[in-house]
Amino acid sequence: MLVTSAPGSPSDGRARLTDVAALAGVSVGTASKALNGGGRMRPETRQRVMDAVEELGFRPNQHAQSLHSGRSWTVGLMTTDGIGRFSIPVLLGAEDALGAGKISVLLCDTRGDSIREQHHLRNLMDRRVDGIIVAGRRTDPRPPLPGVESVPVVYALSPSTDPSDTSVVTDDRGGVRLAIDHLVSTGRTRIAHVTGPEHHAAARERARYAVEELADSSLEPSTRRIHFGEWSEAWGRRAADAVLRTAPDTDAFFCGNDQIARGVADALRERGVAVPADVAVVGYDNWDTMALASRPPLTTVDTNLAEIGRIAALELLRAIDAGPGPGVHTVPCRLVVRESS
Amino acid sequence: MLVTSAPGSPSDGRARLTDVAALAGVSVGTASKALNGGGRMRPETRQRVMDAVEELGFRPNQHAQSLHSGRSWTVGLMTTDGIGRFSIPVLLGAEDALGAGKISVLLCDTRGDSIREQHHLRNLMDRRVDGIIVAGRRTDPRPPLPGVESVPVVYALSPSTDPSDTSVVTDDRGGVRLAIDHLVSTGRTRIAHVTGPEHHAAARERARYAVEELADSSLEPSTRRIHFGEWSEAWGRRAADAVLRTAPDTDAFFCGNDQIARGVADALRERGVAVPADVAVVGYDNWDTMALASRPPLTTVDTNLAEIGRIAALELLRAIDAGPGPGVHTVPCRLVVRESS
Repeated sequence: MLVTSAPGSPSDGRARLTDVAALAGVSVGTASKALNGGGRMRPETRQRVMDAVEELGFRPNQHAQSLHSGRSWTVGLMTTDGIGRFSIPVLLGAEDALGAGKISVLLCDTRGDSIREQHHLRNLMDRRVDGIIVAGRRTDPRPPLPGVESVPVVYALSPSTDPSDTSVVTDDRGGVRLAIDHLVSTGRTRIAHVTGPEHHAAARERARYAVEELADSSLEPSTRRIHFGEWSEAWGRRAADAVLRTAPDTDAFFCGNDQIARGVADALRERGVAVPADVAVVGYDNWDTMALASRPPLTTVDTNLAEIGRIAALELLRAIDAGPGPGVHTVPCRLVVRESS
Repeated sequence: MLVTSAPGSPSDGRARLTDVAALAGVSVGTASKALNGGGRMRPETRQRVMDAVEELGFRPNQHAQSLHSGRSWTVGLMTTDGIGRFSIPVLLGAEDALGAGKISVLLCDTRGDSIREQHHLRNLMDRRVDGIIVAGRRTDPRPPLPGVESVPVVYALSPSTDPSDTSVVTDDRGGVRLAIDHLVSTGRTRIAHVTGPEHHAAARERARYAVEELADSSLEPSTRRIHFGEWSEAWGRRAADAVLRTAPDTDAFFCGNDQIARGVADALRERGVAVPADVAVVGYDNWDTMALASRPPLTTVDTNLAEIGRIAALELLRAIDAGPGPGVHTVPCRLVVRESS
């Protein structure tokens, strides 16, 4: 039976619920109940409706369905400080976990603007989203979204400051341990640490963990201090020169990100220092553009950002089904070894 | 009046339409009509309902509203080959233009997989989206989405191969003209062109325009050929050496992207060639990470990707309101002059 030629079918060729009911020989009300899984009916009746749905290629209007089920099958994905290099993989991981099913993702980019955030939040609540993922750019904690008590929320990358919220973050301590263990186990003992601005949690905490991990091997930073600066290649180049002036016997650089590491590698090459023969360089983030274009390509810590997004989505689905599961989930890093170490 | 303490209000504290009707002293049907703008009623009545909406902080259920208006106030944003450096600014521009109003953006990433594309497309159609933006990564044309005759579609960056569709693309010819005019007007006459793989439209067409623009100034490429290769720094370094071997009097490199340009700049510096004193370098894309980290920072063509997304969104809104407007809209580029030229 071709629906497009059936009398009474709508002009766009889509089968309607009345067509399904007629073919199944039931009332429209019964067909609706069968589709929404509600109400009592004989299994044969439900099966007849489902067979008719199949035969007609009927696809229910999701807005009407939402009114029945009380669920919108949509999730808000809110990026709070611009969609950039860090939030994109998180966003993709979440979209991958959600979009494969029947859940759709409403994208909101608030760009760190509280007016935009309120506007988007009101819109998401109006649309009765089943839950919200808030994806940050930095690892610094952020205040919880206001006025979202009625829906589950999961914070990805930037954790909520409220411990009763659910957050999914990167395991900075584990990532630093992988880098330092790798350098120490390959015979490096004079290790310098060059990183970003001290007011960023990612710089501050990785530096603290680096000092602690070195201490576990009875070592200290080759320059006896942390080189805080910028997340840039130019800073990496300047810092490399400063480190070699202070501690010429430095045999490795552990850097807070891949841009700094690339700058360090360039400065070393231009001074005639061989990487990795004389000095090893390890970066952080595994940003492929930087890590692969570096000469030599960088050994670096991969923070598994897509996995952070995926786990945030799974935590959200769990919370939608079973209620909130407060706490901070950390996602392990992995070390990618290339020619620089 | 506090709705949360009003008798009969729902447990989540949200005002209901019945609360609005009671406060306005009208029937629920009248309140609904007033909200949806339909039906005849006295302006005073509509105003009383609106006052009650305001006082109670009532927010209509958008699913119920959609059933009334026949519009879902959602737009699908489909990226067909991964969300990357090129599709992100397009996506942000579109989200900016759409999200500021009451339209929400449903994000779908098909990652070039036709099964995923069909799944997402079915989902978007089930949700009765008002329209779809298809954002590509490359400038190569793509086949139109199948089965979307009932909703407006706008193609951004990658145009549709069907001329009756609406596409918004970058003005490659104009971008190349800006670069060549700049080099020629600053006295360069021996200009080489190094670019990406010939099977990419962006490489092939920019190369063709470069030859044509040079001919307009009675010039030809310094090496009498186009250097097709990869979109990488490593290719830029290799090509720079090859160009200078063939045509040592080359006084400028016009490169197909910023990575190639950065590689060229590095190779020149390492050969002791001064940029821009001896040789000028111009890139393409204005990818800030590359263009600013280059030594020296790159003069480059900015393709205004966010503007492509914004115009695609505006074209889609126009098509939703007024029907399809077939054709290809080109968005002009701009030249960003930095130290490399």
